[in-house]
Amino acid sequence: MSHSDSSSLPLVAGVETAGAACGIKPAGRPDLALWHFPDGARWAATVTNHQLRAAPVRRLEALRSASPRPLLRAIVVNSGNANACTGHSGMAAAESVATAAARELGCDPSQVLTCSTGVIGVPLPDDRICAALPDLVGALDPAGWARASAAIMTTDNGPKTAWREIGGVRIVGIAKGAGMIAPNMATMLAYVCTDADLDEATLDDMLAAAVDASFNRIIVDGDQSTNDTVVLAATGKVAVRDRGAVAQAIREVCLELALMIVRDGEGARRIGRITVEGAPNDADALRIARTIGLSPLVKTALYGGDPNWGRIAAAAGNAGVPLDEFDLVIEVGGEVLYRNGDNCMTADVEARAAAAMAQDEVPIRVVVGNGSGTATIWASDLGHEYVTCNADYRS
Amino acid sequence: MSHSDSSSLPLVAGVETAGAACGIKPAGRPDLALWHFPDGARWAATVTNHQLRAAPVRRLEALRSASPRPLLRAIVVNSGNANACTGHSGMAAAESVATAAARELGCDPSQVLTCSTGVIGVPLPDDRICAALPDLVGALDPAGWARASAAIMTTDNGPKTAWREIGGVRIVGIAKGAGMIAPNMATMLAYVCTDADLDEATLDDMLAAAVDASFNRIIVDGDQSTNDTVVLAATGKVAVRDRGAVAQAIREVCLELALMIVRDGEGARRIGRITVEGAPNDADALRIARTIGLSPLVKTALYGGDPNWGRIAAAAGNAGVPLDEFDLVIEVGGEVLYRNGDNCMTADVEARAAAAMAQDEVPIRVVVGNGSGTATIWASDLGHEYVTCNADYRS
Repeated sequence: MSHSDSSSLPLVAGVETAGAACGIKPAGRPDLALWHFPDGARWAATVTNHQLRAAPVRRLEALRSASPRPLLRAIVVNSGNANACTGHSGMAAAESVATAAARELGCDPSQVLTCSTGVIGVPLPDDRICAALPDLVGALDPAGWARASAAIMTTDNGPKTAWREIGGVRIVGIAKGAGMIAPNMATMLAYVCTDADLDEATLDDMLAAAVDASFNRIIVDGDQSTNDTVVLAATGKVAVRDRGAVAQAIREVCLELALMIVRDGEGARRIGRITVEGAPNDADALRIARTIGLSPLVKTALYGGDPNWGRIAAAAGNAGVPLDEFDLVIEVGGEVLYRNGDNCMTADVEARAAAAMAQDEVPIRVVVGNGSGTATIWASDLGHEYVTCNADYRS
Repeated sequence: MSHSDSSSLPLVAGVETAGAACGIKPAGRPDLALWHFPDGARWAATVTNHQLRAAPVRRLEALRSASPRPLLRAIVVNSGNANACTGHSGMAAAESVATAAARELGCDPSQVLTCSTGVIGVPLPDDRICAALPDLVGALDPAGWARASAAIMTTDNGPKTAWREIGGVRIVGIAKGAGMIAPNMATMLAYVCTDADLDEATLDDMLAAAVDASFNRIIVDGDQSTNDTVVLAATGKVAVRDRGAVAQAIREVCLELALMIVRDGEGARRIGRITVEGAPNDADALRIARTIGLSPLVKTALYGGDPNWGRIAAAAGNAGVPLDEFDLVIEVGGEVLYRNGDNCMTADVEARAAAAMAQDEVPIRVVVGNGSGTATIWASDLGHEYVTCNADYRS
C-alpha cells in the first residue's frame, strides 16, 4: 500500500506533528515544523559528508554518537535558513532552539534534534523560532503531517510524502527536495517515522541500507549540500513479526521520496533511469552510472530529447573504470543504439529511441562487460529552467 | 612577444602547413589540416586518459611508446568525425590515412600522426581524406598556419593561435576548443611547433609541465573527450641557449591557447579565474579549485553575475579535502565576502562584488587554511546558450 497525498496519511502511533509560520520566510509562508514523540522514539540518522556541515548537522552527529544515544522526543525543522557557515553563533542558535523546545515539551535538550534548510551564511533567527514554539506545540496533532510537510519545503513544487503498512506496522515519510533557494544552497531533508518496535542497531542498519538504495541514487546537479539529513524514528508501539518486510517497506518509502525529489529537481523536465550492468562489481557500476547522470552533456541531451549515445559512451568512459568499446552496449528505451564497436543507429532505431526520450522517465541501459556488478540511478535533466532557476532570479 | 592573429604568425624553420576541405563537413567547410616536417621533427604528445580513446589516439600512443620513437614527418588532422567508438574499422581507417600521407610525402607511415575530431561512432570516411591528400601536400606552405587552424575547428567561434620568440627560437601553437558538434562529442586538440633543437626526453618533460599548467587547468563542462591530444614538435633548426626560457615560452603558448579555449567554451558569457590558497598541498588546492569550477551552481551564479559566496563555500566543501568554516575565506573581485565564520556581505561589499561578477573574467579567491598549497583554474559559466548549444539543436 502506498500513497503520496499528505492529507490522507495514516496515523503512526506515538507521533504528533505540526507546522507553522514563524517569520523566517517572507509573506507568512510556513517555515517551521515539529515532530513530537510523547513517549520517546529510538532513532537513526544519516547526514551529508560535506566538509562544511551545518551547525544542526554537527549537533545531530554528536547526539547520534552519544552512548547511550538519547531517546528522541522531538525534531524541530526550519526552512528559509540553513544555519550553515554561521560560526559559533550558529551552534549556539541550534542549541537555543533545542533548549526552548525541550522546555515546552518537558524533556531534555539532548532529546531534541534540530534541522535547518535554506540560505547559507546568514545567522539563524532562533528568537523567532523560539517565540513560535509554544503555539506550535499547542497545535500538535497525530494527523498533522500535511502542515509539517508544507513547512519544510523550499523550492519544492509540492509536498513529498510516502507511506507503507506492513503486518500492522506503519511507516510514514516526508521529504523536501534537492534544489536551491534564493540566494543560496538548500538541502535534502527526510523524516521517516514508524510505530515499529525496533532496537537502535537495527534502525541504524535499516536506514543505512534504505538510504544507500534511494537518496544516494538520485542526481539533480551533483552539488552536495551542507545540511542533508535523513532521520528514522521508531516509537516501538507495534511489535514486529517480520523484520525483513519492515526493512523492505522502509526502503520503499525512502525510494519513493527520493524519486519525488529527483522528479521535482529544479527545472527538471524529465529524468533518466540509468542502469549499468556487467561491471566488475556494484561499486564500479555505480561510479559509471553516477558519472553518466552527472554529465552536463548527457543531461542536456536528456533535456533535448536527443538519443545521443555518443555522449553516454563518452561519459561512461570518463568514470575511471576500465572500459573497452568492444564490451560496451548502450540502449535507450530498450533500443540498442551501440553494441560492441558498432553504431546501431538506423533511422528506425533513432526514431523509436527519440520517442522514448520524449517520455517523463527515460530508461538508459549501459552494459560494460561480463561482470556481475549492477547499479541504477535516477538523474534529472539540465535545461533552460534549471539555468533560469539558478542564474536569473536576481537579474 | 605574443600574437593571436593567425594571418601574421611567424614562420618556424622546418615546418610547412596546409588546410583544405575534403568533404567530411558539409558545404565545403574546411575539415582537413596537414603539418609537414620535411627534415623530420622530434616530438612529444599528451592525450586524454578517457577509457574509450579514439582510434587515432591509440595509434599515437603506440607510436609514442615505440623505441626508438619514430621521427615525425607529418600530422594529418580531420574535423567533422572523431573516429571514436568505431571498432576495428576505425583503427584501419587511421592507418589508411597515415599510409596515404606517407606515400605522398615519401616517408614511413610510422612517421605520420593522425588526429580526428567530431562526431563519435560514425565510420571515418578515410577515402575522402586520402583523395584530398595530394592537393593538400601540393598546398603546403611555411606560412600556411591560417588555413590549418581553420580546418581543425568544430564549434569554435574562431581560430586559436599563439606564438613566442625567445633567443632566436620560435614557438607557434594552434588549438581547437572544448565543445560539442552536432550531434556528438568533440575534442580539444593543440599542436605546438618549434624550431628549437631539443631532445625527446626534454620535449616530454617540457610538454608535460606545460599541459599540466594550462590545458589541465581549464573547465568548460567537465566532460572529458575521447580524442584530446596535444602534440609538441621540434625541428631542431635553432640551437637553444636557455632551456628554461624555452620551456617557459612553451608553457605560455599552451596557457594562451588554453585560455582561448575556455573563453570560447560553448555558450560561455564569462569565465571565473578560481584560485585556491592555503591548502595542505598543491594537489588538494587543485581538487578544491576544480570542484568549484565544475559546480553547476557556481557556474550558473557566474552566468547570472551573482556574487553568491554560499555556493562557492558549498562547492569547496564538496571536494573531499578536509575544510573548516573557521579557516575559510572567500573573495570575489578582491572583495571579502566571507571570512572565518563570518558573512561579510554588506550592501556595499555586495554591490562591488556584483560589479566584479559583471566582467568577462571574474577573479575568485578561496583561502582554505594556512598550508602552502595553491592552484588556479579557469572555468566557463553555464547559461542558456550552453543549453541551447547542447540540447536544442535537434529540436
